[in-house]
Amino acid sequence: MSDPIETVEGWYALHDFRQIDRPAWANLTANERDAAISELQALAEDWQETEDNHEGSTGIYQIIGHKADLLFVNMRPAMDDLASIELAVDQSTAGQVLRRPYSYFSVVELSKYLVKSSQPFTELPGVKERLFPILPKTHYICFYPMNKRREGNDNWYSLSREQRREIMKGHGIIGHRYADRVTQIITGSQGLDDWEWGVTLYSDDTLDFKKLIYEMRFDEASARFAEFGPFMVGRRLAPGRLGPIFG
Amino acid sequence: MSDPIETVEGWYALHDFRQIDRPAWANLTANERDAAISELQALAEDWQETEDNHEGSTGIYQIIGHKADLLFVNMRPAMDDLASIELAVDQSTAGQVLRRPYSYFSVVELSKYLVKSSQPFTELPGVKERLFPILPKTHYICFYPMNKRREGNDNWYSLSREQRREIMKGHGIIGHRYADRVTQIITGSQGLDDWEWGVTLYSDDTLDFKKLIYEMRFDEASARFAEFGPFMVGRRLAPGRLGPIFG
Amino acid sequence: MSDPIETVEGWYALHDFRQIDRPAWANLTANERDAAISELQALAEDWQETEDNHEGSTGIYQIIGHKADLLFVNMRPAMDDLASIELAVDQSTAGQVLRRPYSYFSVVELSKYLVKSSQPFTELPGVKERLFPILPKTHYICFYPMNKRREGNDNWYSLSREQRREIMKGHGIIGHRYADRVTQIITGSQGLDDWEWGVTLYSDDTLDFKKLIYEMRFDEASARFAEFGPFMVGRRLAPGRLGPIFG
Amino acid sequence: MSDPIETVEGWYALHDFRQIDRPAWANLTANERDAAISELQALAEDWQETEDNHEGSTGIYQIIGHKADLLFVNMRPAMDDLASIELAVDQSTAGQVLRRPYSYFSVVELSKYLVKSSQPFTELPGVKERLFPILPKTHYICFYPMNKRREGNDNWYSLSREQRREIMKGHGIIGHRYADRVTQIITGSQGLDDWEWGVTLYSDDTLDFKKLIYEMRFDEASARFAEFGPFMVGRRLAPGRLGPIFG
Amino acid sequence: MSDPIETVEGWYALHDFRQIDRPAWANLTANERDAAISELQALAEDWQETEDNHEGSTGIYQIIGHKADLLFVNMRPAMDDLASIELAVDQSTAGQVLRRPYSYFSVVELSKYLVKSSQPFTELPGVKERLFPILPKTHYICFYPMNKRREGNDNWYSLSREQRREIMKGHGIIGHRYADRVTQIITGSQGLDDWEWGVTLYSDDTLDFKKLIYEMRFDEASARFAEFGPFMVGRRLAPGRLGPIFG
Repeated sequence: MSDPIETVEGWYALHDFRQIDRPAWANLTANERDAAISELQALAEDWQETEDNHEGSTGIYQIIGHKADLLFVNMRPAMDDLASIELAVDQSTAGQVLRRPYSYFSVVELSKYLVKSSQPFTELPGVKERLFPILPKTHYICFYPMNKRREGNDNWYSLSREQRREIMKGHGIIGHRYADRVTQIITGSQGLDDWEWGVTLYSDDTLDFKKLIYEMRFDEASARFAEFGPFMVGRRLAPGRLGPIFG
Repeated sequence: MSDPIETVEGWYALHDFRQIDRPAWANLTANERDAAISELQALAEDWQETEDNHEGSTGIYQIIGHKADLLFVNMRPAMDDLASIELAVDQSTAGQVLRRPYSYFSVVELSKYLVKSSQPFTELPGVKERLFPILPKTHYICFYPMNKRREGNDNWYSLSREQRREIMKGHGIIGHRYADRVTQIITGSQGLDDWEWGVTLYSDDTLDFKKLIYEMRFDEASARFAEFGPFMVGRRLAPGRLGPIFG
Repeated sequence: MSDPIETVEGWYALHDFRQIDRPAWANLTANERDAAISELQALAEDWQETEDNHEGSTGIYQIIGHKADLLFVNMRPAMDDLASIELAVDQSTAGQVLRRPYSYFSVVELSKYLVKSSQPFTELPGVKERLFPILPKTHYICFYPMNKRREGNDNWYSLSREQRREIMKGHGIIGHRYADRVTQIITGSQGLDDWEWGVTLYSDDTLDFKKLIYEMRFDEASARFAEFGPFMVGRRLAPGRLGPIFG
Repeated sequence: MSDPIETVEGWYALHDFRQIDRPAWANLTANERDAAISELQALAEDWQETEDNHEGSTGIYQIIGHKADLLFVNMRPAMDDLASIELAVDQSTAGQVLRRPYSYFSVVELSKYLVKSSQPFTELPGVKERLFPILPKTHYICFYPMNKRREGNDNWYSLSREQRREIMKGHGIIGHRYADRVTQIITGSQGLDDWEWGVTLYSDDTLDFKKLIYEMRFDEASARFAEFGPFMVGRRLAPGRLGPIFG
Repeated sequence: MSDPIETVEGWYALHDFRQIDRPAWANLTANERDAAISELQALAEDWQETEDNHEGSTGIYQIIGHKADLLFVNMRPAMDDLASIELAVDQSTAGQVLRRPYSYFSVVELSKYLVKSSQPFTELPGVKERLFPILPKTHYICFYPMNKRREGNDNWYSLSREQRREIMKGHGIIGHRYADRVTQIITGSQGLDDWEWGVTLYSDDTLDFKKLIYEMRFDEASARFAEFGPFMVGRRLAPGRLGPIFG
């Protein structure tokens, strides 16, 4: 009966949310604060170099609200790379004041719901760029995890492949309408983290996040089948701008 | 099938709830305490100046109960303004004793459910004042986030636009009856925070909050379709009255 | 369609639960401990004086279990009074060791489900005593918040007024049977706190709480429509007996 | 319509779970550590003396996993006794390092579902021993709280007394089959704590807990109607063996 | 009506997740840090010796994300062994900086759904190796707890034995297809911990975890009946590699 759609995976992603422990920061000496920021900047430069070498991608953001202060997003070929990056932050001087309120581990995923080509999938135009994406440099980011519902009559995983394809088509149409304003990266996390997917949106206007999500919610894919985790919104920090967040 | 109602957005809002860490406060020196309060007052004066210049709005409240001690509400043209305000509080001396138990990021939203005019919406009388509202100076505030339910037969997003309009009309009638006593600001937060809307109520009598919410709960819009987050109630702090809350 | 029963409100209530931070207490000097207790006793005497003047009511309890150590219940004419009381505790020396694990803000509520008199409600015998109650001096207290359910076929707010009245009548009959052993104070909290009602029970025998709640659960009002929050049980602390709780 | 089964109650129970704050423990002086353990041992001896006098019962256990390190179970004639015991632990030297991650307050309960005798219930053989039980000295303990479900068609409290009796009979048959290996103490907590019942199991083999719970889950009483809280498993600490847990 | 499948149990398992308190670690002296790591290494060597003697099994992993830093998995003949291991970590010097964000206590379980042999179960080929498993030395580990659903029409425990057998057969077919890439250890935890089962997966490719879980979710056993707890993913730490995690 089980009739899953094939998926293709790319880079692994770690969304690493951090909170600055303000009293602990205030208790550091001036030297320790300088070390904390310069070590973190050095890590950020390493990450950028990896991106420049097309061996991964990276983004640093200030998150609004109480849920986090900072977000480091890194994409790499293997989970080991991401575990090492997380550990490097924790073991740096800044690691003494950077709490970890949330994180998300997932892998870039493309599903073949709407593919009909006979060509090998990964050779289709644009597929490699989507599997191994350079994170957009837009001003804003929005991240949220989600599930497909499995409740009573609203059980996504009991639908036929054809029913799912039909529903996803409607969903895709809305996404396409926003395509020139919002870049969307879907990462799969079944077996990797607590929700089934992570959604990372990039735009130069936070209103696009609201409009897109609002419109999609009336679509059957969301109305009947989507369950959402926390939403985190941030603004991109240009290289070298980490210091002002610590203050 | 998806048939959303168009919405129009105004200022962005950050409801920034804070708890005073009493032992940490007791450990500050007298000089640090003076600095903490005078810096915070200076920030509050800046925010007021912004309001005086019609470039945003601001309100400071004492919250009752264990959920928070203080609430800063700021409305601004862009998320960046709000992120900077939050950071300024965190980096001030008071930031060392002000924990962040909750916050809410949203944007003022008007929906066109009941509009029939052929005139451009934003030119209708009162619309601009509602999109870019000066926060009322009433004695009390009530804030809560909410969703429209998507469960089994009670799925708001599967209703037709006409059904939704009909249900919202009944809801609006109750609201209108309280209009001279309670000012209501609806902010949308799909794609911005964990619930779909924030509701901020202003009144000179806390009983109005209870009466309004109680009466609305029997209305189909709430009875069948509303899911509520935490309710936070506070009283307005007049400028210069922040110090006595710290003590 | 909305057909709410009219309610009448009396004093506002703050149930203020506190935990003693034992290591912080151990770190206070003997002088600070003396100050902590004598200041708190002075506050308790103020509250008692308010009760003696019929301008409010007050009760102090030791709570069993990990959820809290102490409970201060105060009833006052306005939310401002309660916010000031909470602040006075926080700003006292004891405030440095009294964490706030829970609280509840609500207002005494009488509903007119079973009233048929043509007389003005508040002039009926006993009504004023119930709207502005002097908290019983029984040995034990039980507090819990609750909602009426709004799920599928079990949606309290979609019932007609007549159906609700019928169900509440059965509920009242059980309550009446316990009336000489258990005093019940219902406070409404729609628009004020996270649940719809608070229930405060007073008795000289904790078994009465169990028997009453158990029996009511088989009643349709509870079986189909009640959702319960945490239950907190305590014993009354006579004036001057706060010190032994700190130790 | 309400048709509850009569229950009979015995001793009150406090399950008091504790976590050792390891850094705080390491910061105590050698003298303080000695005092912490010897004071706790003295309390345990008092409790044992109470049991020897048949005025209550007591048990001390090491809990496996992160949820707790220690469990003190005490049974006493009144809630006041248990509140005093909890306070004595908190105010002892050990109280500075013993956090309270969980607790449960309840009262021994026998229900008359299967009783047909015309004799007064409490005079039936074995009833007094079950109402005022000396806690078994088996090697292992398992505790969990539970509710009877009240959802849609699976509403325990809407069943007739006869239906409930029939379902409980099947449940009892499984329990009887384990009777020589597992001792079960049911404590009621409606109106006393957050769940409706506490279940405390005693055995010399932890596998018995798994087998019993597993088998019962297929029984209608559990399959359709049981909702379970956290499960805590521990091993009994013989008198004088508290010290090695602190280390 | 109750018709459970017989299960056979092997070693007990404790999945002991730990977080390194970075500020506390920074506050240790160099000597204390050396002691912390060398004591932990000594414990790890003891555990390995137990495995070498076929008296249990052991594995140490670095966990990705904010949920934990380290995972110790130990399997032993009795719960007492596991309680002693947990205590030894807590009482070591490292115990002062190793918080316990999560743990899971369970026992290796084989169910006889698909067994038809007349031979005694534990004498079937491979059964002993599965009841008393040496934990695989693959590069990656994935752990998650789960329940079988008991809701409305989706109630696993109300199905007949034959229905359950049929559903589990489909489930097993998917598992078999991954058998050469993923090793799966099922541990039962009814009566032992908060979920009904723990699932521990081992593979040299984290993508296998995602692919296996994704594919199974379309299977009726998961689609209709599975409820999942948190997912934790880690990489194996070779003996002697604990120190670099502390840094």
